[in-house]
Amino acid sequence: MRAYDVIKNKRDSKKLAQNEIKYLIKGFVDGSIPDYQMAAFLMAVYFQGMDEEETYWLTDCMRTSGDLIELDGISGITVDKHSTGGVGDKTSLVLGPVLAALGLKVAKMSGRGLGHTGGTIDKLEAIEGFSCELTRQQFIDAVNKTGVVIVGQTGNLVPADKKIYALRDVTATVDSIPLIAASIMSKKLAVANKILVLDVKVGSGAFMKSLEDARTLARLMVKIGTQGGRKVSAVLSNMDEPLGEMIGNAVEVQEAVETLQNKGPESFTQLIRTLAAQALVLAENGKISTADAEARVDLVLQNGAAYKKFLEMVEIQGGNPAKINQLPKARQTIELKADQDGFVSSMQCEEIGLAAMMLGAGRETKDSVIDMAVGLKLIRHVGDQIRKGDVIAEVYVNPDRGDNSKAIKRLRDAICISSKKANASPLILDIIS
Amino acid sequence: MRAYDVIKNKRDSKKLAQNEIKYLIKGFVDGSIPDYQMAAFLMAVYFQGMDEEETYWLTDCMRTSGDLIELDGISGITVDKHSTGGVGDKTSLVLGPVLAALGLKVAKMSGRGLGHTGGTIDKLEAIEGFSCELTRQQFIDAVNKTGVVIVGQTGNLVPADKKIYALRDVTATVDSIPLIAASIMSKKLAVANKILVLDVKVGSGAFMKSLEDARTLARLMVKIGTQGGRKVSAVLSNMDEPLGEMIGNAVEVQEAVETLQNKGPESFTQLIRTLAAQALVLAENGKISTADAEARVDLVLQNGAAYKKFLEMVEIQGGNPAKINQLPKARQTIELKADQDGFVSSMQCEEIGLAAMMLGAGRETKDSVIDMAVGLKLIRHVGDQIRKGDVIAEVYVNPDRGDNSKAIKRLRDAICISSKKANASPLILDIIS
Repeated sequence: MRAYDVIKNKRDSKKLAQNEIKYLIKGFVDGSIPDYQMAAFLMAVYFQGMDEEETYWLTDCMRTSGDLIELDGISGITVDKHSTGGVGDKTSLVLGPVLAALGLKVAKMSGRGLGHTGGTIDKLEAIEGFSCELTRQQFIDAVNKTGVVIVGQTGNLVPADKKIYALRDVTATVDSIPLIAASIMSKKLAVANKILVLDVKVGSGAFMKSLEDARTLARLMVKIGTQGGRKVSAVLSNMDEPLGEMIGNAVEVQEAVETLQNKGPESFTQLIRTLAAQALVLAENGKISTADAEARVDLVLQNGAAYKKFLEMVEIQGGNPAKINQLPKARQTIELKADQDGFVSSMQCEEIGLAAMMLGAGRETKDSVIDMAVGLKLIRHVGDQIRKGDVIAEVYVNPDRGDNSKAIKRLRDAICISSKKANASPLILDIIS
Repeated sequence: MRAYDVIKNKRDSKKLAQNEIKYLIKGFVDGSIPDYQMAAFLMAVYFQGMDEEETYWLTDCMRTSGDLIELDGISGITVDKHSTGGVGDKTSLVLGPVLAALGLKVAKMSGRGLGHTGGTIDKLEAIEGFSCELTRQQFIDAVNKTGVVIVGQTGNLVPADKKIYALRDVTATVDSIPLIAASIMSKKLAVANKILVLDVKVGSGAFMKSLEDARTLARLMVKIGTQGGRKVSAVLSNMDEPLGEMIGNAVEVQEAVETLQNKGPESFTQLIRTLAAQALVLAENGKISTADAEARVDLVLQNGAAYKKFLEMVEIQGGNPAKINQLPKARQTIELKADQDGFVSSMQCEEIGLAAMMLGAGRETKDSVIDMAVGLKLIRHVGDQIRKGDVIAEVYVNPDRGDNSKAIKRLRDAICISSKKANASPLILDIIS
């Protein structure tokens, strides 16, 4: 077999055989197939796509390219979630404790972020003493004890994805639905969770700009996960404006805490309710209705059980629950005021994220150091009526980082105010399972 | 500027700017843009194509990536020809002397072959003493004296094409009309010939399988050449069966000699007549009709002037004209006989070429040594009626090279005999200028 023929077959829209995909991925990972052949293949996939079966084979080859993580030591039903990413996404911080409070087990491995803000791990490290580095046994023991633990990815998990993603990133082949599905699902299926809830974002701030593409991706991932022996459900949610109100690191932890105390933004709470209910319905094999499941989620938010799980997680991971309100704070708050009457008609989500990154909340390169304290709060949302002079956002800056005026201008330009009332899209757009 | 954005723009079917193409080619040649980004770009071009302007810019960037060859020292009208390649293509060996006999100047640079048979240079080296290595001054002087000289490519001619072609070859991106046009024309325009005649092959044994694709390629190359300040004409000719009767090296020289003596196969002679007449019409700025030009070609074939030019070329390049009939001969001739009555209905041209290569006539890898003597002669052609036992081909083998039976079987399988009469396609399919 030759890599050339596999590239040519894909180029010519022929269905690839399982062993062709295996040959290519194995060869690429072991270095016998060079970057340039893989790059040509990825661009051919960009144009010709892959059917469900090919995508499953690709996912499975990638999945088995490194360590597989069994979760045998954990008693109970293990749940994992994945978000396709967006601006202000602090879902894991809240969903994990909620699921634990519902009696499920969340043994979560998360990443650091290269983007608008830090990843889940970065955000958690805003809590003094919090450590995401546990040994495998500590991890298992902690999950059994508290029901929820969030650690960093360790070991050689899906090296094929790391290598392929690095190449896609520089060859304009990221935006391919089968490649996105295989990348996500290879990592999810490398860890032996029983239930998987997928949070697929749709809109200007997400990978998937259209609902149609998001549905295609969600259906494909649900199929792959099911074929991989998991119970899977996907929630499609709106990312035309950032999730919740806070964007940053410490400020997102703060918003997560408030949400766990049932005082969070309604939209974000609704997403948590929907995702957690999906996990519960899957765990109960559909013996509970979605409405009942959602009521149970609301209960653990109202009665403090979810927040209690969060504090237990903080404690078992080295943080001090008593100091949860003493997160890093920026030295200065700048109010962004409306310069005209009107309505918030739309938000350029990605631009808002980039403004946060410019403030110091995210990494521009791998070596950038995140400023945990900086960030911003969106006070007004799409559809809101505003008057000139109203505060539409608060910006939390550390002036000694340098001039923040460009970031603030970027934020201002990203919030569009119009004389015509615009309606906000609903948050939950579809559920696929 | 970033290579990523150039790749993405092409992927998204945006028209590239001249400086984007320049940036990419320059960076790839100097090593600052890696293979894998170029491979992704080439695959994007495969799918999205390039318009005439983009293709010209690409051609021109490639052309100026290395040495440019001025032909200032040559008095008269310089003509170059290019063939897109096929099986049994010995056109340069005959066309060069014919054009010289018509008063034009042919300062030809040719390559060695990696394929069915050797290239023009390899074939000429079947003539004892013949040398294709002349200094620049010897080359100019020889052209001024004889009107036709064929040398090997020297110097750093269009390194961008060498590097890009090597990459296309292993990434399944060879079959792209704009990339083919840019590859051919960058090399042609790097040498300052005034007239360019393009021999575009169409059919099972050619790059271009369909007349439509061949027309597109020919039109594009004529446009690029004209924009580059050349007079250009393209002849589309049939490559559904090999050109002439002989396939090999010494045997093709022998057939070239016979054609120059006006005793060659009619089809091959017709191609020479058409190509040479096109060059003449361009040289005379259209002041001569095609019919008159063809008559003048026939005249130099009939009166020995063309053959005389060939012998002069052989002599000035170190060969002995008196020994032109003492070419290397294979030790054994095997007759391939028809095993049924019927008609030759088609020939798998590429398979016949590969059979010749297996006999030893071509290079499978860069290090293969060509056997100048071996080859084959196709005695019967598409449309011919045959009876069981008729000799349809002669195979010239050197038995000490090993078993030739596989090559002979391949040849037999490639000549299709059917009970229904098939008509041969006309040789000249179109002329574009």
